[in-house]
Amino acid sequence: MQQESALEGIKVLDLGRVIAAPYAAAFLADMGAEVIKVEVPGIGDDARQYLPLNGYFANFNRSKKGITLDLKKGKEIFLKLVKEADVLIENFRPGVMAKLGFGYDELKKINPGLIYCAVSGFGQTGPMSQTAGYDPLIQAMSGIVSITGHPGEEPVRCGAPLCDILSAVNAAYGVVCALQYRSRTGKGQMIDIAIVDQGIFVQASTNQFYLSERKIPQRLGNGYAAGAPGGLYHAKDGYYMFAGSGDAAWKKISVAWGKPELAEAPDYKDRTARTTNRIAVDKMMNDWSADKTVEECIAFFKGLKLACGPVLDAEQVYNDEHFGKNGVRQMFTSVNVDGVGEIEITNQAVKMSETNPVVRCAPPKLGQHNFEVLAELGYSEAEITAFKEDGII
Amino acid sequence: MQQESALEGIKVLDLGRVIAAPYAAAFLADMGAEVIKVEVPGIGDDARQYLPLNGYFANFNRSKKGITLDLKKGKEIFLKLVKEADVLIENFRPGVMAKLGFGYDELKKINPGLIYCAVSGFGQTGPMSQTAGYDPLIQAMSGIVSITGHPGEEPVRCGAPLCDILSAVNAAYGVVCALQYRSRTGKGQMIDIAIVDQGIFVQASTNQFYLSERKIPQRLGNGYAAGAPGGLYHAKDGYYMFAGSGDAAWKKISVAWGKPELAEAPDYKDRTARTTNRIAVDKMMNDWSADKTVEECIAFFKGLKLACGPVLDAEQVYNDEHFGKNGVRQMFTSVNVDGVGEIEITNQAVKMSETNPVVRCAPPKLGQHNFEVLAELGYSEAEITAFKEDGII
Repeated sequence: MQQESALEGIKVLDLGRVIAAPYAAAFLADMGAEVIKVEVPGIGDDARQYLPLNGYFANFNRSKKGITLDLKKGKEIFLKLVKEADVLIENFRPGVMAKLGFGYDELKKINPGLIYCAVSGFGQTGPMSQTAGYDPLIQAMSGIVSITGHPGEEPVRCGAPLCDILSAVNAAYGVVCALQYRSRTGKGQMIDIAIVDQGIFVQASTNQFYLSERKIPQRLGNGYAAGAPGGLYHAKDGYYMFAGSGDAAWKKISVAWGKPELAEAPDYKDRTARTTNRIAVDKMMNDWSADKTVEECIAFFKGLKLACGPVLDAEQVYNDEHFGKNGVRQMFTSVNVDGVGEIEITNQAVKMSETNPVVRCAPPKLGQHNFEVLAELGYSEAEITAFKEDGII
Repeated sequence: MQQESALEGIKVLDLGRVIAAPYAAAFLADMGAEVIKVEVPGIGDDARQYLPLNGYFANFNRSKKGITLDLKKGKEIFLKLVKEADVLIENFRPGVMAKLGFGYDELKKINPGLIYCAVSGFGQTGPMSQTAGYDPLIQAMSGIVSITGHPGEEPVRCGAPLCDILSAVNAAYGVVCALQYRSRTGKGQMIDIAIVDQGIFVQASTNQFYLSERKIPQRLGNGYAAGAPGGLYHAKDGYYMFAGSGDAAWKKISVAWGKPELAEAPDYKDRTARTTNRIAVDKMMNDWSADKTVEECIAFFKGLKLACGPVLDAEQVYNDEHFGKNGVRQMFTSVNVDGVGEIEITNQAVKMSETNPVVRCAPPKLGQHNFEVLAELGYSEAEITAFKEDGII
């Protein structure tokens, strides 16, 4: 049975490039919105050239239609598209759309219900609005890098582009909230997503130490600020992550190690004592596991009903029976790209019983839906052919 | 002028504990929904005890009302609340709500329009559904830890709880999409958010190397897979992050260094060559900056119109003139907690022109709105007092 979709009937213009804005539009597309990706004639989104070729582009642009349009020469066509649209998403440098005559203040005159979502590195206004916002740079400037890595060593970025991805999810969230508002009032609005905001926002819990106590959060490596044991430990063939720093957990471990006295020792008996003596606690954990395999360590802690797991790589994740390719979570899916074949991509992380987001179709070839979309706007085949010849589309 | 809100008129029951589910509910609350946090009588959400005391809880529970309710003894009250609600959010271990008689299949009988959002570590079904999902453990098991840290060294988790936070944003996004669907059809649905899914999802771009080419992404430290120079470099007083690995950038740098020949040298002239010789390129960057301050390095690259920035800590972020406390991004706000005073918290990362999400009120004291909420359900003052005496609320 074909499922229904949450955003049926919603039209989205996607002027985005690379990750954040295109991915936001893909989320809306998987939810059932009709998304038209608008690209530069003959060139297209830079991401078409990103590695892995086809795969990168497919992931961030599945489920969309695509047209080409020169925004300078094709002003009339663009304004017709805007008139029909519910949502516009773009991630040009702030001011670029206004310079083209397409700022929100102009567009709302022809479509007062338009939801205009702009994604940028540092937001639409203020002293840094013109600064480019690459994810690693944002990770550095928002504080994430300062709290990632081992104490006393060089800080390091998170390997995943979390600020880009959070921008995309928050953009999609903002758009759907704006649709709710519009359904009550008929009014559209402007949404201003800054990638730097995401970096600050994702640190809400660690920021709080500064906000409440003016203590600057430090790098803790794989440890915790709030308790021990906890974090990454060494087995003879790799690492395992352990989470269970409470007193009851420590008692179970002490007994299972045949050292029940550790649960009563002044240096270790409660969370505060163990946190103070974290280095000694971590050494006990590492000494215990040094001659065991990761599998043995995990089995031991799971036997005590404590939380413990391996450090998996992308291949192990893909093959996991619970959350991998064939697992219940269905976190990988695929699209069939004409001339390329089946391309596997990462799936949505929202699962819904009635309107589950699903990949609708392969990403568009450059200009694939020019005729279809322009014909719907009322242009004749002869006009569309002329647009093509004039480099407008 | 008091702004309007996107989710006015939406009622949310928040049965969440700690981060993911409570934060999702806080997003909806800041967007204008009426959120009632339901806590265990006399005890409440564990997060009330988390450090920093008051601050942690305030951040994740601002803008809500709060009641206490024993879900076993107070079944009738709970079902009345569900009947009036649009949304229910919970993060119990899968199966707990069903055992209480409050599984989605039961609740939809009395409220077919209910949107039931369950957040858990590994999802509602499958072999691992009963496994607890702490953020560091999820970071390890979803692959994030495997790609974070320096090559050849111990992997490390990201210092921010990104999987928890993404769970919250995706939960809120799913809920509002479900509201859209319900406004067309009257039907509610079940949303199943797994924290592990978020860890996989945030790696979409790096996963793609495995999905397309069966290459397992590795730790790159602060470097890039796709080009050089790029990443974190050493100045004499700290680090700076540089993003600009294209050929045009390299040419500008070579000329500005007074070594234009580097732009033509076979080992460095194009992106592929520089990526192959990344170690030499990084050494040139580090050698150049070793006797300069971070500020001088950033000024140099900004002068060339290349992207470069400092590694800031929480205090520097807070004091930043663009994205700090007094900056245009308004990423910090505050609530006034009775008996505690003004508590600063982290703000939302979605900025909207008409329905900007804003903090509505301080987090509730335990059971603060018991009388108000139960009176609205039709209970008399005498009944409510009796509930209190019987430990039901």
